[in-house]
Amino acid sequence: IEEGDGAGIGRLLEGLHPADIADLIEQLNSEQQEKLARIAPDVLTGDVLANLQWDTREVVAAELDPAHLAAAIQELDSDDATLLIEELDDALRQQVLAEVPEENRAALESSLSFDEETAGRLMQREFVAAPDFWTVGHTIDHMRAAGDELPELFFDVYVVNTGFEPVGAVPVSRLMRSRRDVKLADIMEEVRIRIEPDTDQEDVAYYFEKYHLISAPVVDASGRLSGMLTVDDMVEVIQEENKEDLLALAGVNEAGLTDTVFESVKSRAPWLLVNLGTAVLASGVIALFDAAITQLVALAVLMPIVASMGGNAGTQSLAVAVRAISSRDLTSANARRVIIREMLTGTFNGLIFAVVMGVVAGLWFQNWALAAVIAIAMVINLACAGLAGILVPMGLKRFGADPAVSSSVFVTTVTDVVGFFAFLGLAAMVLL
Amino acid sequence: IEEGDGAGIGRLLEGLHPADIADLIEQLNSEQQEKLARIAPDVLTGDVLANLQWDTREVVAAELDPAHLAAAIQELDSDDATLLIEELDDALRQQVLAEVPEENRAALESSLSFDEETAGRLMQREFVAAPDFWTVGHTIDHMRAAGDELPELFFDVYVVNTGFEPVGAVPVSRLMRSRRDVKLADIMEEVRIRIEPDTDQEDVAYYFEKYHLISAPVVDASGRLSGMLTVDDMVEVIQEENKEDLLALAGVNEAGLTDTVFESVKSRAPWLLVNLGTAVLASGVIALFDAAITQLVALAVLMPIVASMGGNAGTQSLAVAVRAISSRDLTSANARRVIIREMLTGTFNGLIFAVVMGVVAGLWFQNWALAAVIAIAMVINLACAGLAGILVPMGLKRFGADPAVSSSVFVTTVTDVVGFFAFLGLAAMVLL
Repeated sequence: IEEGDGAGIGRLLEGLHPADIADLIEQLNSEQQEKLARIAPDVLTGDVLANLQWDTREVVAAELDPAHLAAAIQELDSDDATLLIEELDDALRQQVLAEVPEENRAALESSLSFDEETAGRLMQREFVAAPDFWTVGHTIDHMRAAGDELPELFFDVYVVNTGFEPVGAVPVSRLMRSRRDVKLADIMEEVRIRIEPDTDQEDVAYYFEKYHLISAPVVDASGRLSGMLTVDDMVEVIQEENKEDLLALAGVNEAGLTDTVFESVKSRAPWLLVNLGTAVLASGVIALFDAAITQLVALAVLMPIVASMGGNAGTQSLAVAVRAISSRDLTSANARRVIIREMLTGTFNGLIFAVVMGVVAGLWFQNWALAAVIAIAMVINLACAGLAGILVPMGLKRFGADPAVSSSVFVTTVTDVVGFFAFLGLAAMVLL
Repeated sequence: IEEGDGAGIGRLLEGLHPADIADLIEQLNSEQQEKLARIAPDVLTGDVLANLQWDTREVVAAELDPAHLAAAIQELDSDDATLLIEELDDALRQQVLAEVPEENRAALESSLSFDEETAGRLMQREFVAAPDFWTVGHTIDHMRAAGDELPELFFDVYVVNTGFEPVGAVPVSRLMRSRRDVKLADIMEEVRIRIEPDTDQEDVAYYFEKYHLISAPVVDASGRLSGMLTVDDMVEVIQEENKEDLLALAGVNEAGLTDTVFESVKSRAPWLLVNLGTAVLASGVIALFDAAITQLVALAVLMPIVASMGGNAGTQSLAVAVRAISSRDLTSANARRVIIREMLTGTFNGLIFAVVMGVVAGLWFQNWALAAVIAIAMVINLACAGLAGILVPMGLKRFGADPAVSSSVFVTTVTDVVGFFAFLGLAAMVLL
């Protein structure tokens, strides 16, 4: 099918949901995606483009005519339009903007003026607002008359005061079941959170999750209602932030499934280089004790076990901490308690595996002094692992860095260095 | 404040959003939480309880009177009520259910009859349905008359046929802006997905995300509309599933921030035990080459570097794969391409770091044969790491297991064993 029949592809995809079409396109490799954009551009409507992942969108957008892109963008609500245009490269973006009529262009440019990953980029400029003295009946009649000026879909009517500041929100379902003569002020819910356009998207997603919001008003610097955010965009933000955390913990900078080998190497090599540095550092610790190893080769056999157990315990503690920080459960109020718990957890696990590993080492090498050394080193390393696992992300957070990025490198450096030093150092003192 | 003044606490928390009250309670340690439940049970309304995390809820529920719990549960919509009651222990649950009036009890018991983590547990039994021949005006009048029987909040009116099967959905905002004489059938959106009560919550969350749903109807075995799911519950499901993935990759079974040390040890020790087993296995590989190490102690110094780089590269590849599987981007259609990419990425990174590490080792030990050995071992191990990182989670998935759980243990076992074997084996052949 990919062999040139653009009209055939159009017929095949007819009747499918844009999200399903986008899914199918993502299964193709990038050459096929480029070819599709050339032979069947009409398949790539605004809705389909909005459903593609950013990396795929980049591939097909490069092949599309700026006029086609401009038309696709105008089909969409302003938040999706912004999403689409922000990822184009500068030259192409200018070309596309030039094709968009004046008034829409100004709105798009103002959205683009906000930083990436802020509420300003995500917000939709179409919203429904009503003064607080209006009645339910008046509001409904007004909306029905407004028709096409209203957003495609909305969930709350924002109630504004005379300064156009949002003071409350009435869910549409409540509007619908209230009597026509009830005043909006009597059925509205108070607006608790002021979201400004420069609020970080992670904070916004947190409010949505915490207060079970479906939509929220955005206000400008003077407090006037200027846009709205909806929960479907937040679901994407939450997924994106979770993905970033998971990949960052594993040492991957940014990844899409259609990345080429070159892009994958580029996103992973920097962290491998950092890891190489810390691995060489840990090797330096081993080199300090090369005489001991020559005398007792069992030390070389056993030392990776201490380091590996420490690395694992540290990663466990780190994952719990990163998760707790990103869900805002770990705060200064309970930090002390959690730190102590992590250290004790590490110590207890250390004691358990000190016994197990002591017995294994003693039986294996028939050397009970060596068994005692590995047991003690295990306790020391797992206690340090627990501490490092919680203190490193908390420290990064305090210095304004992302606690997920780079923390696992620091933690494994600690557990490798402490593990080798404790085990080999004790062995050199006790056994030789 | 915690020292006994229940009424004072009540006054302090007055006017706060239930989610904020729940947040404050979560900052307390479990003894304080228990005390709070005893001295100020009235603070713990249904809404506050529903906002607590499950581990905190367990703590306070144990201290509350069954009659209080039963009253709290009846304040809530049926989905939140189910959530609350499912986590009580069996004896307490029976006591609470006994306090709930007959008709509500039957509904709760039927929700509890579905498996955990399915749509049946999450769904709400209150929903709004209308036959397809009704007009907008008739529907609105009917809803206004129904009043309290309607759910607290709803976003779509489901359109049903004569068999009470959902055939479409009309967003409330569209209902509101359409003329009163328009038929529902003309403005409804087709229902694409049939969610049954035993559908896994992960699948449900995926549909919500993919189709940007705000609510979705649930049908029983005969296809009749029996409940609805809303996006706010899905946000929680998404967070929970992401948390599970991240913790599983780090080898933690289940974790809450208020866990005691004992609970933390219990959730982490099993994976540390597995890791110990694999670490001993890797040590066994080293022991095969103890003669070589005694002759050339530089081998002991350098060998952890090869293993560590492999472990890191494997973890990177694994994180990308687990993420792609859970977002359904990695399917059988593109598996081949992704596997090849991961292997090539590993190989290229291996080549880069082979050169870097070869130079470092050569300069450090002034031994260029040793440098060549570590370089070759690095390429072999990083290529295997890339392959293991993608094949292990795909294999687990194929056998019906969760690709996040236990995969990192398998991957690091591969990279440790291959790393030590390639490096020490080559060294024994070439250098000695």
